[in-house]
Amino acid sequence: MSEGFTLWFTGLSGAGKSTIANLAAGELRARGHRVEILDGDEVRTNLSKGLGFSKEDRDTNIRRIGYVCNLLARNGVIAISAAISPYREIRDEIRRNHARFFEVYMKCSIEKLSERDVKGLYKKALAGEIKNFTGVSDPYEEPLNAELVLNSGNEKVEESLQKLLRTLEVANYIRNGVVR
Amino acid sequence: MSEGFTLWFTGLSGAGKSTIANLAAGELRARGHRVEILDGDEVRTNLSKGLGFSKEDRDTNIRRIGYVCNLLARNGVIAISAAISPYREIRDEIRRNHARFFEVYMKCSIEKLSERDVKGLYKKALAGEIKNFTGVSDPYEEPLNAELVLNSGNEKVEESLQKLLRTLEVANYIRNGVVR
Repeated sequence: MSEGFTLWFTGLSGAGKSTIANLAAGELRARGHRVEILDGDEVRTNLSKGLGFSKEDRDTNIRRIGYVCNLLARNGVIAISAAISPYREIRDEIRRNHARFFEVYMKCSIEKLSERDVKGLYKKALAGEIKNFTGVSDPYEEPLNAELVLNSGNEKVEESLQKLLRTLEVANYIRNGVVR
Repeated sequence: MSEGFTLWFTGLSGAGKSTIANLAAGELRARGHRVEILDGDEVRTNLSKGLGFSKEDRDTNIRRIGYVCNLLARNGVIAISAAISPYREIRDEIRRNHARFFEVYMKCSIEKLSERDVKGLYKKALAGEIKNFTGVSDPYEEPLNAELVLNSGNEKVEESLQKLLRTLEVANYIRNGVVR
């Protein structure tokens, strides 16, 4: 069986974390890996009900995702997190608890995100109608040493996905081809 | 690889849940299974900080353990919970979410537990010094259809452990001998 690890996406809302996470999950499952996506909403329902969006509550929520990812990763699963996870210190703390951790920064400018703005959230956040909106009224701290940066503002989804899979192979997180 | 399942211990404080859980975990690991024990204290620290001991908070804590057990179990791990889990409804809800669930009731009378009282908790609880103490000042609902009942008040630890392992084999949760 293949070894597990945590594939940790971080980036602003709308930067494509969930899109790439879901496509990667499908591809990795097709290759025979066990994969779990720790979806932000599902985690908030099952592990973090009652928590809000203050710094402290966000940190707690992210730490819980990290704890569960680690439980899965050390048991041979590729655990995928696609939460914004805005604070570097918390991401790095989770990394330190892991034997194998692969961080993917989905990089996209606020300008680009505001242009797209599929859910209309940036418009509202920039107008001051949403409080604690990461990247607008709340901080986002870019990773300094992510294993991979995907410029999702400038490249196609398929291109990002292939870059991710190739990097996972080259860095020996996964093997090329089917694993079992 | 072997299939995962959740091995769910329930019973009063001091009835031997953690003792048998730890021994079983060691034996199952030695046979080649992946095993995780969701220890009550560790879970309270990592998943349930801030929760108290009201019915609602206890239910939330147990549901979180159940959620994580299920994530592990469906990925080939034997996930072990050794929390008191006093309420039948919550245990049965967790059972329903699982593909494979094995409940072990560690049965021991309050009289026996008060006699032993290793930590002196029953004395305090019976004297009214500890509130919400399960089995004394807080309810404990016995399982009606546990896969196994271990009369830990009347049998030796080694006897309980062997009964558990044999039952897991007979019920095809594990195979006899080493699995990989």
